[in-house]
Amino acid sequence: MTTVGILGGGQLARMLALSGAPLGLRFLVLDTVADACAGQFAPMVVGDYTDEAALSEFASKIDVATFDFENVPAESARWLAERVPVFPNPRALAVAQDRLAEKSLFRELGIPVPGFVDIASRDQLDAAVAELGTPCILKTRRLGYDGKGQFRIKSPADVDAAWNALGAQAASVGLILEAFVAFERELSVVAVRGRDGEFRAWPLTENWHVDGVLSASLAPARVDAATQATALSHAKRLADALDYVGVFALELFCRGGELLANELAPRVHNSGHWTIEGSETSQFQNHLRAVLGLSLGSTRMLGHACMLNWIGAMPDAAPVLREAGGHWHDYGKEARAGRKVGHATLRADVPTELAESLRRVGESLGREAQVEPVIAALR
Amino acid sequence: MTTVGILGGGQLARMLALSGAPLGLRFLVLDTVADACAGQFAPMVVGDYTDEAALSEFASKIDVATFDFENVPAESARWLAERVPVFPNPRALAVAQDRLAEKSLFRELGIPVPGFVDIASRDQLDAAVAELGTPCILKTRRLGYDGKGQFRIKSPADVDAAWNALGAQAASVGLILEAFVAFERELSVVAVRGRDGEFRAWPLTENWHVDGVLSASLAPARVDAATQATALSHAKRLADALDYVGVFALELFCRGGELLANELAPRVHNSGHWTIEGSETSQFQNHLRAVLGLSLGSTRMLGHACMLNWIGAMPDAAPVLREAGGHWHDYGKEARAGRKVGHATLRADVPTELAESLRRVGESLGREAQVEPVIAALR
Repeated sequence: MTTVGILGGGQLARMLALSGAPLGLRFLVLDTVADACAGQFAPMVVGDYTDEAALSEFASKIDVATFDFENVPAESARWLAERVPVFPNPRALAVAQDRLAEKSLFRELGIPVPGFVDIASRDQLDAAVAELGTPCILKTRRLGYDGKGQFRIKSPADVDAAWNALGAQAASVGLILEAFVAFERELSVVAVRGRDGEFRAWPLTENWHVDGVLSASLAPARVDAATQATALSHAKRLADALDYVGVFALELFCRGGELLANELAPRVHNSGHWTIEGSETSQFQNHLRAVLGLSLGSTRMLGHACMLNWIGAMPDAAPVLREAGGHWHDYGKEARAGRKVGHATLRADVPTELAESLRRVGESLGREAQVEPVIAALR
Repeated sequence: MTTVGILGGGQLARMLALSGAPLGLRFLVLDTVADACAGQFAPMVVGDYTDEAALSEFASKIDVATFDFENVPAESARWLAERVPVFPNPRALAVAQDRLAEKSLFRELGIPVPGFVDIASRDQLDAAVAELGTPCILKTRRLGYDGKGQFRIKSPADVDAAWNALGAQAASVGLILEAFVAFERELSVVAVRGRDGEFRAWPLTENWHVDGVLSASLAPARVDAATQATALSHAKRLADALDYVGVFALELFCRGGELLANELAPRVHNSGHWTIEGSETSQFQNHLRAVLGLSLGSTRMLGHACMLNWIGAMPDAAPVLREAGGHWHDYGKEARAGRKVGHATLRADVPTELAESLRRVGESLGREAQVEPVIAALR
């Protein structure tokens, strides 16, 4: 009997547990709150990620550890890694937690990346804004999540406000200024790397964000074979460099046919939720297969899939359940503004069918704005 | 928040909970043993099905009840049904628990059934053996499961031994003599009926049993459209007559193109496990959708699927996990002779691919005998 420990008990941990149960696995979730939604289907240890007593109890009951949440303190990950195998390794986690380390690694590996400058002072910010031009975005190096800890500088006149908002964090978490990319599309590679270095990726996914939060994903993305190959080659180079084990997502901007790396998410990813029904093997099961050193499952698609994210509160399930290819995912969370509470995946054999299904669901739920860009992409 | 109570905490309850989680459901399992495998992923009440205190606690915490196990005492089901909605209804359960009531209903509905006679005495058994001919099978009317409580009468000389084995149960659970059917194939309809009477069925499944226990299932079964239509019409008539809500299986013998009803299983069924990966909606999720009055999901197949049952102990997972369409299901049970401990589903787009996959898995596991009849059927 193998028990997998998961740091963080949100929907990712929940879906990991649900997809890992058929492998005969048991799970133990560590979360700071007792009502974390993964706790509805897996036993929990409740405690802070830096609480050594909680970490000790957690470590003593598991055979291997992984993450639902990348902002676990790197120190805790390292402490744990001295006691049980931890995948992905703490270094990969540390790189992904730090925008500067992450983008520096992209650059080092020859993965194109938007311009960026490390910012430690107001003077450096002024110089960097002049170098990168406006618009640009000032961000904290660490603990950013879904658009938090960011300030968009539209013109040099905004530099004061940006510094007022985030300058105090320069000395603690650090700041980075990033060039704004007027991208045409956002893509992500969701991929998995095994303990033996085997690498597999799902077809590229196209993503739409609203207010910095993922709203919809479409797979396969409409890209040519060269773009697909370039994106996968970036992802593989990154995973190999980090000796990464498990599933990760590489978020990319697409501008004039060029791909620019935006972010590495060192975990199963929202833009891969469609793999549950849309692929032979889901990202969740493949993450666990990788972490356990099992054969990786096939990442081939079953038709065309669109994931719609539900933010804040669950809409009526009926319009999705009425669709032949409609699949519902309610994370069992309380409604709260801005919170990811669930998603739906619509699947169809051909793009026109998927577009029709999206249109019906969008109309029934009064969410035309959410489905419209995906329908347009399917035309 | 809706909590579904499940009587019985075996693998069916476990797979119901895993597939119902995405609907935002919570589960509570009632089982007689604390280590029932569904308890690894759902909270439990431990107690006998006739223990009123346990039943009361169970009833007080759930919104609706269903079964993983059809031999729950009908009295307990009725007691529960006075307190919470119970699906399928206790009458359907009672009919399925009693071979005589079940076969009488088949006959009443015009569903062809092998000859059978109610047996209350040794004299009646002699007369019935003369009437039905040999071979024939003496069975208990109730509590039969996977070949237990049965005695095969190969010639009139076996009548003494049969009566010695089972005669004492004539007065308690009752006995029935059934004609032996020299069938060519065993098929099952796995179907679902909603609260509103909507009926959907998955494609017919062909099944192979070893020692009375399911060994392998293949879907879709190789049958002509007329056979498929007849089988579905039998299943629908039965479900309508019982006002059945949820998933059930109708097991059929096929002899010279004729279908004979063998048994009604009033629950999700082992011969429908392939629906998890092989169909748009699994039997588990559709059972829950039916029980909750939600829209039923599509039962269309995704390619061709074969389920291999693991009895007694789990084999090595690796050969299945290496297959592109290989899916593993370990129920988290201790090994024990005769126990259903897990299954694998192999899926492929075309029959030849599925046969190749079966051949590789059979060879790697030294289970050629288990896969051979399925490969032969795929030729």
